[in-house]
Amino acid sequence: MKEYFPNIDIVNYEGYASSNPLSFKFYNSSEKVGDKTMAEHLRFAISYWHTLCGTGLDPFGNQTLMRPWNDVSEPMAAAEEKLFAAFEFFQKIGAEYYCFHDRDMAPEGKTLAESHDNLEKICKMALQLQKDSGVKLLWGTANLFSHPRYMCGAATNPDPKVFAVAGAQVKKMLEVTLMLGGENYVFWGGREGYESLLNTDMKREQEHFANFLHMALDYAKEIGFTGQFLIEPKPKEPTKHQYDYDVATVIGFLKTYDLIDQFKINIEANHATLAGHNFQHELALASAHGLLGSVDANRGDLLLGWDTDQFPTDIYDCVAAMGVILNQDGLAPGGLNFDAKVRRTSTDLADLFYAHIGGMDCFALALKVAHAIKTDGVMDAHIKNRYSRYDSGVGAKIENGNTSLVELERFALANDAPKPVSAQQEKLENIINQYLVKVIKSL
Amino acid sequence: MKEYFPNIDIVNYEGYASSNPLSFKFYNSSEKVGDKTMAEHLRFAISYWHTLCGTGLDPFGNQTLMRPWNDVSEPMAAAEEKLFAAFEFFQKIGAEYYCFHDRDMAPEGKTLAESHDNLEKICKMALQLQKDSGVKLLWGTANLFSHPRYMCGAATNPDPKVFAVAGAQVKKMLEVTLMLGGENYVFWGGREGYESLLNTDMKREQEHFANFLHMALDYAKEIGFTGQFLIEPKPKEPTKHQYDYDVATVIGFLKTYDLIDQFKINIEANHATLAGHNFQHELALASAHGLLGSVDANRGDLLLGWDTDQFPTDIYDCVAAMGVILNQDGLAPGGLNFDAKVRRTSTDLADLFYAHIGGMDCFALALKVAHAIKTDGVMDAHIKNRYSRYDSGVGAKIENGNTSLVELERFALANDAPKPVSAQQEKLENIINQYLVKVIKSL
Amino acid sequence: MKEYFPNIDIVNYEGYASSNPLSFKFYNSSEKVGDKTMAEHLRFAISYWHTLCGTGLDPFGNQTLMRPWNDVSEPMAAAEEKLFAAFEFFQKIGAEYYCFHDRDMAPEGKTLAESHDNLEKICKMALQLQKDSGVKLLWGTANLFSHPRYMCGAATNPDPKVFAVAGAQVKKMLEVTLMLGGENYVFWGGREGYESLLNTDMKREQEHFANFLHMALDYAKEIGFTGQFLIEPKPKEPTKHQYDYDVATVIGFLKTYDLIDQFKINIEANHATLAGHNFQHELALASAHGLLGSVDANRGDLLLGWDTDQFPTDIYDCVAAMGVILNQDGLAPGGLNFDAKVRRTSTDLADLFYAHIGGMDCFALALKVAHAIKTDGVMDAHIKNRYSRYDSGVGAKIENGNTSLVELERFALANDAPKPVSAQQEKLENIINQYLVKVIKSL
Amino acid sequence: MKEYFPNIDIVNYEGYASSNPLSFKFYNSSEKVGDKTMAEHLRFAISYWHTLCGTGLDPFGNQTLMRPWNDVSEPMAAAEEKLFAAFEFFQKIGAEYYCFHDRDMAPEGKTLAESHDNLEKICKMALQLQKDSGVKLLWGTANLFSHPRYMCGAATNPDPKVFAVAGAQVKKMLEVTLMLGGENYVFWGGREGYESLLNTDMKREQEHFANFLHMALDYAKEIGFTGQFLIEPKPKEPTKHQYDYDVATVIGFLKTYDLIDQFKINIEANHATLAGHNFQHELALASAHGLLGSVDANRGDLLLGWDTDQFPTDIYDCVAAMGVILNQDGLAPGGLNFDAKVRRTSTDLADLFYAHIGGMDCFALALKVAHAIKTDGVMDAHIKNRYSRYDSGVGAKIENGNTSLVELERFALANDAPKPVSAQQEKLENIINQYLVKVIKSL
Repeated sequence: MKEYFPNIDIVNYEGYASSNPLSFKFYNSSEKVGDKTMAEHLRFAISYWHTLCGTGLDPFGNQTLMRPWNDVSEPMAAAEEKLFAAFEFFQKIGAEYYCFHDRDMAPEGKTLAESHDNLEKICKMALQLQKDSGVKLLWGTANLFSHPRYMCGAATNPDPKVFAVAGAQVKKMLEVTLMLGGENYVFWGGREGYESLLNTDMKREQEHFANFLHMALDYAKEIGFTGQFLIEPKPKEPTKHQYDYDVATVIGFLKTYDLIDQFKINIEANHATLAGHNFQHELALASAHGLLGSVDANRGDLLLGWDTDQFPTDIYDCVAAMGVILNQDGLAPGGLNFDAKVRRTSTDLADLFYAHIGGMDCFALALKVAHAIKTDGVMDAHIKNRYSRYDSGVGAKIENGNTSLVELERFALANDAPKPVSAQQEKLENIINQYLVKVIKSL
Repeated sequence: MKEYFPNIDIVNYEGYASSNPLSFKFYNSSEKVGDKTMAEHLRFAISYWHTLCGTGLDPFGNQTLMRPWNDVSEPMAAAEEKLFAAFEFFQKIGAEYYCFHDRDMAPEGKTLAESHDNLEKICKMALQLQKDSGVKLLWGTANLFSHPRYMCGAATNPDPKVFAVAGAQVKKMLEVTLMLGGENYVFWGGREGYESLLNTDMKREQEHFANFLHMALDYAKEIGFTGQFLIEPKPKEPTKHQYDYDVATVIGFLKTYDLIDQFKINIEANHATLAGHNFQHELALASAHGLLGSVDANRGDLLLGWDTDQFPTDIYDCVAAMGVILNQDGLAPGGLNFDAKVRRTSTDLADLFYAHIGGMDCFALALKVAHAIKTDGVMDAHIKNRYSRYDSGVGAKIENGNTSLVELERFALANDAPKPVSAQQEKLENIINQYLVKVIKSL
Repeated sequence: MKEYFPNIDIVNYEGYASSNPLSFKFYNSSEKVGDKTMAEHLRFAISYWHTLCGTGLDPFGNQTLMRPWNDVSEPMAAAEEKLFAAFEFFQKIGAEYYCFHDRDMAPEGKTLAESHDNLEKICKMALQLQKDSGVKLLWGTANLFSHPRYMCGAATNPDPKVFAVAGAQVKKMLEVTLMLGGENYVFWGGREGYESLLNTDMKREQEHFANFLHMALDYAKEIGFTGQFLIEPKPKEPTKHQYDYDVATVIGFLKTYDLIDQFKINIEANHATLAGHNFQHELALASAHGLLGSVDANRGDLLLGWDTDQFPTDIYDCVAAMGVILNQDGLAPGGLNFDAKVRRTSTDLADLFYAHIGGMDCFALALKVAHAIKTDGVMDAHIKNRYSRYDSGVGAKIENGNTSLVELERFALANDAPKPVSAQQEKLENIINQYLVKVIKSL
Repeated sequence: MKEYFPNIDIVNYEGYASSNPLSFKFYNSSEKVGDKTMAEHLRFAISYWHTLCGTGLDPFGNQTLMRPWNDVSEPMAAAEEKLFAAFEFFQKIGAEYYCFHDRDMAPEGKTLAESHDNLEKICKMALQLQKDSGVKLLWGTANLFSHPRYMCGAATNPDPKVFAVAGAQVKKMLEVTLMLGGENYVFWGGREGYESLLNTDMKREQEHFANFLHMALDYAKEIGFTGQFLIEPKPKEPTKHQYDYDVATVIGFLKTYDLIDQFKINIEANHATLAGHNFQHELALASAHGLLGSVDANRGDLLLGWDTDQFPTDIYDCVAAMGVILNQDGLAPGGLNFDAKVRRTSTDLADLFYAHIGGMDCFALALKVAHAIKTDGVMDAHIKNRYSRYDSGVGAKIENGNTSLVELERFALANDAPKPVSAQQEKLENIINQYLVKVIKSL
């Protein structure tokens, strides 16, 4: 088996003071933070599509990322080489998990039957590599957006023939995900939405989409797949408007179509910001509804209007995210998948490592900061105290729904005007920076 | 009674060729479009807050709109003058409806009891003026955002005392709305949301908000108010994040808290665009769920990030809106409320008339265009045909939920690949312009 | 020569009442508007890249637009077929002009010499087709953004070897543009900017860029090319930040590097909105500086953050644009180039025609509306009058720079406070809709 | 003299480990970083308008910030109290500088003469307080946007009478700034722009604006004011479009109107992001042109479309800013002015202290990080090396303008194709986080 990253060793933890750019400064997989190891907390996964399949193509330019595993011209042979490169990368970077779409791993054939065969062949090889390496599958998914047949949607396509092919792809991917021990299954509906209301029946499309998901749940039950089903929201791009706009929209959709008990949500940082929310908002909202299932860990550029899928290196975002995750006692069976790509100008193979190291280190440090904040309880205490007036008296009646406007009016007429209480946002913001420093000093 | 607009007569319909800026060019209230008059279709309402109370204040500048009805310094006397000016305006512009917040119409007193009294006094006068003029109340609402007590929310305030005052305000406004024959009651939660997650318990706040709405429903029932309850979504401003972000979010909220059968949605054009949607999307989404209750007819500036509340003059937006409204057979008991304000540099009283004339004319013309498009059925036929493959065969099975991934895979393996079918967006866009011209030629 | 659009005849003007979607409703090339024909006013050009080379590729999906002229696999033979298809299209749609990048028309060869040869061969054929058809070249340009060598810029690349290749491409394209009688030459710097300031020397890059433009001017002089040089601003995409951000930025750049007398600006509607400006702003600003040279006529989607390059069908935008253009007495030697593409779901060849017809008709109608507004002089008179206080007295002194703060203070102390004067924005907005109707009624 | 912050002592540096929220953790004014003290590097200023005059008013709500110095009802007496509170605050927080608009410090009178008198009186008191406390004036400016007379602009107003009053205000403020030893004078043109092109003559307005600035320069010369003149860009808000959109626009404007040698630029972080740029971009661009004069240190919320003016607490932004500032060897005579306001829900006087402490500490830490990065030279070396190919050979010819397209084509034809070189953005991003940790560990 060819070595694809011959100049790069397994990336080790060397501590914050190391000047080796190919070492971890903060991520020490077996180090305990609280009662779990970093690896158990963070459950990092590598995204096959960006890291192995990324070409650097953009709307105005051709491929810049020339990968040695793509030098083979026969598609199935190339898929094998890519698979070997993938597992070499997974092990060298020290990620426990990976994620993929059917078409990332094996090429689309001339017929659906051939596509099925291609996928099965490569996935059997992947299964062996998983066993050999200990790397596991976080989630699988079907690519229902790249092929031209999906230009007007997959489950929301006006042509039932397209719906049927999409169904067949999902059926196969559920089987493959089961075979590979995948812990989750994801739906991202990049083309499930509309380009123009002039030619769209929104209601009918959404009903078809819901039926599609119900069929997937039924089939998963039939074959014994017990992994978690996830929906990944994104507001727009590629489609002008996508039905899974954001967490709140997905909640409404799942409730409307009786899917709320079977699905959780896979939240991507960059999709959050494209919807006008910050990452933490989407995480916190999903978590408050018991629906935070997994995370696509990346970052966007809020001054650009498209998905830049950059590696997460902003400690504030990562601390905020880890805060929500710790509060719900972790993501498992979900994880932190680096749905992130190197810039198209980062043409070296080493750049793939720098990028993942930066992301993993940032989350590792953020885990420590968030853990310290949680353990000390300062922020939680502030919030608890702020709402404590609802723990008793008229507040408790309000909270329990045991009062009425009549009673409240009587209360308001009888009492003094409420006194203003500072919400102290600045003081609380300062505390985040203080914890950042405190934790770093303690490294 | 003083005349506040002495130089302005009742605004009449004079037809498109009139050069009188104080005449309607297209809005002819008694003209039939289909089987209803324009007035019946459009149900125009004037917003008390902008048109009577607007001062031109902005975050960087002081009052520019000096209104003669504000020359009185004693607050209750000023409220009376404003009321007279209001009804003079309503009648001169020929609007059948108006809308108001409690604090628009009568000043906040030193105590809640005094505020209640103030409101009741002025509303009794309003009732008489309604009778005299025939002008009706489209909806009432309580202002739960301007007073400093609401700086951290009303129903979502961490202080139950504030919740109680808000409850008392809504109780009173429900009584007043009932007295005035208001056809709807609106909740807009400008401060129901958060500034920072560092000090916010989102879940608890949302539960309090839901309880608040339930109490309002209960009290309405108790007093026999049978008008429609409406929630008005807005994503941000004044609050960084508001819980009623957009239509999809409100649907999820109403379903979560068992409010879906009692509420409809009041959609504002400018709030739609601030949420990243176009106006038509929000209307169509609400309508598809049977939840489109009323409309705040204005327009925003998509290059600015705040609510500019401009008068609607874009014929495309208005045609798109009227298309959705005609498709659900009208808005009643809702209407088209001009939640719009003259620019702070439009300092003449006549500008109030120009602005409303522009908006009413634009919607009147749009009504005709949308009606012609609907009557001819070209666009509807296109959409119906596009999805007709779901009317029979495998499509119908999908639509009815009578198939499975196994059957679909069998189908996909047995059939040829789906053929691409053009979605013809450009051709359909051209048709809009053709109808615009066609209708204008027929005037 | 194969006919590529066999089912489509030359598109004729049939008037507004025609129901033939393949006819012009408003564009009647030889009809006079004022003292020029529509064709002379509008100078429509077809963009080779979108209309002939467009594939429907987007960041999440593969080619959807399968064109018969691409069925040939040998690149130069394919280029010939595409050229024939191009001129068939130009003539059938009735455009007088076209525009192209070097690599649109002929494929990149294995070496620069081969690329030069390829371009020359195809352009000689184009010259003959121009003669045969009467179609002319509005402008040529070099594609300095698609090839991977340009990933870090062309004239702003850190590698002078890349700069040199870019220079060679421009040299060749200047020769070719001269040969084809091109009336302008355009620079669009899609990669001239930066991805990150961490690795960028902005100053040095901008100086190199300026030197590049000076060399192009020198060479044009040397070979006798007397067409107009144009810079096309765009703020971002593909590059995070592009140096030619918007018109104001380009003005500053041209002045800094002594290029202001040799360049004008080519303004694209969708680039304007991506920079946070409306189309009219950019046109008016350039025109006020005598720098409005040509227009890329398309439209964007203000709710999406990338260049959608849709065909212009919004009559308001087109009226505003034509207003500026008429005010400066036309665009010649520039024109209106449809830098616009059919949606990737508009897969029929006929969609190319519908799209261009919609754009041409919209501009033709807009020309009439703008011409009527200008002829009647209502809007101009309003503006002239608004500033007339600067025509004499202290105003004239201010305008001529003949006063001082001391004198102004004396004046201000001696005079009454200035009186507010309404800016009447709503009244003026209404006039636009009135002219729209007036002109349509007169068709 | 009343003490306005009786419960708050002078804020001292107590080091990172202090748990006293009213202490500095990083800002130690006399500590040297390189060869200057922190105070010399950072030159912090307090903005009078936000910190002393802020009321918490927003477009949907009334005053929430009730300050004891506003309890006096007579305007001039209130101005005195506010002044005492100001100097108490300046000294307790330990800022060396402050900034103000004329109307922040003294109330507008009934006449211009009275306004002049008011200002002079209070400023004489301020002069004494400056002497007593050692606090200095960083810059003065005239408020030419709040008064209704400025609704259509000050220097760009269609009424020369308004222009004259604005001129008189600037004249007086120049005198006052001189008297108080102000080191700079700022122009922020919040109303210098337009609301609608329907009523605007952009060219004439810009010429008036330029004449206004020339008159100010002349008068400064006349009275011997030698401070630096500054323009502060902002793209929109309050005006739809402002002429000083961003740094690039200001550069073009200054060059067009021959003002480039007399002005520098005052850059506000939040204005940068409203213009679609990040803070560092605007700083770097101005600095590259030798025009970076001073900084309004705050932060915005990129998910909101208006100026939130939050206190800067993001270490990345501050490191990036300090990097540019260190590279140009400091800001003097400019400084870091906290043009930032506490949230309207931060109602305690202590919140003013927390907020400033957070901002000062963040910049102090950022200074150390930026200084370490600069001293080590890693980032600079990377950039220098990246462009080193322009130091000799064909690169140097390009840089010096000593070559031509002909020579470059010859070079390109004769040489191999350029090789791709990774731009290594991710590797460089990681270094920022490493320096952050390194510096904190060394505290």
